[in-house]
Amino acid sequence: MNVKAYAAEKAGGKLKPFDYELPQLGKEEVDIKVHYCGLCHSDLSMLNNDWGNTTYPFVPGHEIVGEVIAAGTEVKGLKVGDLVGVGWFSSSCMHCPSCMGGEQHLCGEAQGVIVGRHGGFASHVRAHWSWAIALPEGTDMSKAGPLLCGGATVFNPILNTGVRPTDKVGVIGIGGLGHLALKFLKYWGCEVVAFSSNPDKTEEILAMGASKVVNSRSAESLAQMKGQLDFIINTTNVSLDWNAYLSCLAPNGRFHTVGAVLEPMQIPAFSLIGGQKSVGGSPVASPSDMLKMFEFCLRHNIYPQVQEFPMSQINEAIAHLEAGKARYRIVLKND
Amino acid sequence: MNVKAYAAEKAGGKLKPFDYELPQLGKEEVDIKVHYCGLCHSDLSMLNNDWGNTTYPFVPGHEIVGEVIAAGTEVKGLKVGDLVGVGWFSSSCMHCPSCMGGEQHLCGEAQGVIVGRHGGFASHVRAHWSWAIALPEGTDMSKAGPLLCGGATVFNPILNTGVRPTDKVGVIGIGGLGHLALKFLKYWGCEVVAFSSNPDKTEEILAMGASKVVNSRSAESLAQMKGQLDFIINTTNVSLDWNAYLSCLAPNGRFHTVGAVLEPMQIPAFSLIGGQKSVGGSPVASPSDMLKMFEFCLRHNIYPQVQEFPMSQINEAIAHLEAGKARYRIVLKND
Repeated sequence: MNVKAYAAEKAGGKLKPFDYELPQLGKEEVDIKVHYCGLCHSDLSMLNNDWGNTTYPFVPGHEIVGEVIAAGTEVKGLKVGDLVGVGWFSSSCMHCPSCMGGEQHLCGEAQGVIVGRHGGFASHVRAHWSWAIALPEGTDMSKAGPLLCGGATVFNPILNTGVRPTDKVGVIGIGGLGHLALKFLKYWGCEVVAFSSNPDKTEEILAMGASKVVNSRSAESLAQMKGQLDFIINTTNVSLDWNAYLSCLAPNGRFHTVGAVLEPMQIPAFSLIGGQKSVGGSPVASPSDMLKMFEFCLRHNIYPQVQEFPMSQINEAIAHLEAGKARYRIVLKND
Repeated sequence: MNVKAYAAEKAGGKLKPFDYELPQLGKEEVDIKVHYCGLCHSDLSMLNNDWGNTTYPFVPGHEIVGEVIAAGTEVKGLKVGDLVGVGWFSSSCMHCPSCMGGEQHLCGEAQGVIVGRHGGFASHVRAHWSWAIALPEGTDMSKAGPLLCGGATVFNPILNTGVRPTDKVGVIGIGGLGHLALKFLKYWGCEVVAFSSNPDKTEEILAMGASKVVNSRSAESLAQMKGQLDFIINTTNVSLDWNAYLSCLAPNGRFHTVGAVLEPMQIPAFSLIGGQKSVGGSPVASPSDMLKMFEFCLRHNIYPQVQEFPMSQINEAIAHLEAGKARYRIVLKND
């Protein structure tokens, strides 16, 4: 099948129209006509080859919402015409202990949508049936895209690391991921404190459900949070004063990063030992947990705050994101 | 009451006989005649003022086994003649959320036995009743001392962080704490891998319950453990190749340090995120968990391997520990 996509020819290059052929559909695969695709910071990281694993021509896009237009003979649970979402992964091995244990997102052979293959800024995209999530009826497809990577990334630790409605939770960085974390945590029943470096966002952040906004650039403001938080989720990918945030944790408090900062975090052992604290991390979510997320969102009417661009204006959208102007997530709509 | 103790007059000084007077017994306190006292690495750290909080004259000793010889009018659960153990802490506030929640070892006002007061290398020591643990009948008092700090420190994370009998667990550093971790984990039902820098200990380590000994000085040996361990407990207080150990963890694996290394640990976020891993730490155990430990030890006949010195030879015992010759924990017996 011929796919009309947008690709960069080199690191940091502009995206240009790019046609490619998909080989014959595998028995367990589906082809999806792309309706919408979110623009994620990791699309930029990959575009710039920040992680050293990008191949060119490079077609970004891994927050895909679309319609199944073809299904292999061994596909389970999906049929042509189904509305589905695809996030960071397009397949996993389905038989290792992680896959068999329901944690397909930890499979050592899981294949990224945009790693070594072409992504969702295109007319079509292909995936293993297990990673094409059937979106619950009633979901607003125009806003669902950012839930598939950004949303799943922050929902996973909330769901799986024991965050309780009685917890006081901090969210660092109120962008694409952080604003979704705020919304999830509000309906999770938690008291939520937002750490933001941008005072212009304060009113919006409070409206999203935070009870308090702390200026993350102020050491004094951080110090005032000493010992108060049960859980902190970091959505930024820059080096922070890690110890200052560890100090914000109550006894048994947990700091969790989903932001992939490149420099090693400096973690004093004493800061963990005394208060029985920990530092963890996680990638996106498993398919079954993504479905739980969509059902939770539908029940509580949780959506990302999106800015929509036509897909033909992909370069303008990227420039908007790079300029720090996204409020709070960009979605590309196929022209 | 007059107490005959051993004290250092300055950082790193020899211990010399030192008499001091205890004031009137508080209503909630007990006085304990010391029979045995373990010698812990943190006695050395405090003796040398490594943590900057030592006051002199300094009386070390916080793995105390003895007999209650006086009890205040409001003491609960103990009476004169009871055999008890006292570990790192001598009191806590008893009313903060941590104390009320059964985690008295996380109390912000918990008082260390040898921090700002005198410890157990002495004829007597004083403690709040809550931190004088009634030792189960049948416990070998001559070997129980090291369980009170060293043992409790490694038992706490095994008990409270979700270590399961199906887990494959690594123990780094097979000294006072590490050899007890091996023994606990053997009876916890786990497969245990010991990381040791001393090949001379291999046979003894296997006899204690490890299924395998990995040379911790060999990068190649560490690399062969890639992805294999569910939990690693670090009992050393030196800087390690943290990332090499994180690589030894399976998906969802947890690295836990009880060793108080002074330099910040260098933890790459990517090493946590991909496999959903974490790094935690903890201090000693709560009183109720110390009791659980003693009951577990009695049931399985778990004791530290000890070398006994008369308390009058305290300086020889310290030299023995400093020379790395302790196999595996030193206990001082009151003369």
